[in-house]
Amino acid sequence: MSGRLTGVGTGPGDPELLTLKAVRALSEADVVAHFAKRGNDGNARRIVAAHLKPGIIELPLLYPVTTEIETSYEDYRSAITGFYEDSAAAVGAHLSAGRNVAVLSEGDPLFYGSYMHLHVRLAHLHSTEVIPGVTAMSGCWSEVGVPIAQGDDILTVLPGTLAEDELARRLLDVDAAVIMKVGRNLPKIRRALKAAGKLSRAIYVERGTMASRTNMKLADKPDDRAPYFSLVLVPGWEAML
Amino acid sequence: MSGRLTGVGTGPGDPELLTLKAVRALSEADVVAHFAKRGNDGNARRIVAAHLKPGIIELPLLYPVTTEIETSYEDYRSAITGFYEDSAAAVGAHLSAGRNVAVLSEGDPLFYGSYMHLHVRLAHLHSTEVIPGVTAMSGCWSEVGVPIAQGDDILTVLPGTLAEDELARRLLDVDAAVIMKVGRNLPKIRRALKAAGKLSRAIYVERGTMASRTNMKLADKPDDRAPYFSLVLVPGWEAML
Repeated sequence: MSGRLTGVGTGPGDPELLTLKAVRALSEADVVAHFAKRGNDGNARRIVAAHLKPGIIELPLLYPVTTEIETSYEDYRSAITGFYEDSAAAVGAHLSAGRNVAVLSEGDPLFYGSYMHLHVRLAHLHSTEVIPGVTAMSGCWSEVGVPIAQGDDILTVLPGTLAEDELARRLLDVDAAVIMKVGRNLPKIRRALKAAGKLSRAIYVERGTMASRTNMKLADKPDDRAPYFSLVLVPGWEAML
Repeated sequence: MSGRLTGVGTGPGDPELLTLKAVRALSEADVVAHFAKRGNDGNARRIVAAHLKPGIIELPLLYPVTTEIETSYEDYRSAITGFYEDSAAAVGAHLSAGRNVAVLSEGDPLFYGSYMHLHVRLAHLHSTEVIPGVTAMSGCWSEVGVPIAQGDDILTVLPGTLAEDELARRLLDVDAAVIMKVGRNLPKIRRALKAAGKLSRAIYVERGTMASRTNMKLADKPDDRAPYFSLVLVPGWEAML
């Protein structure tokens, strides 16, 4: 009997934003796998810590590279593909041995989550369920308390890695936007928002819903430093700003 | 002492997708308000039913119009604005009397939720917290098991009410999309997806995560009928399709 694969969305950071279903999945798991950087427990592991059964098997999946590596695209592709193959094999071995594996995923598993790289390799081989989670962006706009989109608004999620003119073009063409992967892209994002006439309504959010969270108008945020996983919100509705 | 206003995201439909924080907010509320159509308890009320304390005060907020009304834009605007004003006054009266009010919101409160119309009218007057929830779209792509977006994908949320050429133009210009408010717009959405070369990967989802849920390739779905709140998913990643 093969075990069951469950992709478990842990939500954005506050452990209370776990769903009842995620908590149940953790109680039914024999193995809990999570992605993390070497030397770091990872946020997902921290979020669920209070719900891990004594004696549960833990399977940390340690990224071989950082998210903002200065290497060639091909080197990066090759390292990260090998890592996902190895991770899928490690999870698959537990499943084949009949153990239920819960794979933690910050936010929502199939929305920019690493879990999806296991899902596409394993879901056709094993019984699989995905438990959605509260996304980081929902956590951020709820914390700030700004309606992000309403009625017939068009909302776009943009990576901060886009070229400046491309970012500006897309920001001009929508009602509301969320810009992810801020980090070193912050000065460029600021220029693109200014070009699109939307800098005044942009809000910068760092570590949304976590204890160390902070947020401010992007116009008031210096370009000195921003974590890779900070977000910029551009609400469609200006009523609250 | 004024009471506390809490916008409570109930998630997409499955009661197990409530967060621990939402359950706690319900246990601390003196009043639970929810939006619904006349003669209908509303999904949000059903989702939290098991967590309502005996004797809690319920405040149903009954929409004066349906979502697909055949009336002039001005009539609709006027009726709905008056409704939100009256609803805010009813919730505000409980808050001013010192009662904590939890306002239920299907999905996530500040993401196309009716709650935001109370929030903009009350949050500057009373202590307020927004508890994010799992969105309907996360519930839908998790149920189908397709990764919606990864890496540097651009994801856009589009209302099915857009004009056909506008829908097609935007679908052409993104990696991944979610089309909301399907209903009678289904034949138009199908034509726009075909024009953008993305019909083959589109997935139709009805009542995601609820007991009566169903999903299929949009290409296999007849144009006969679709509920207003069904969704069309256009995953950025074709690996799973």
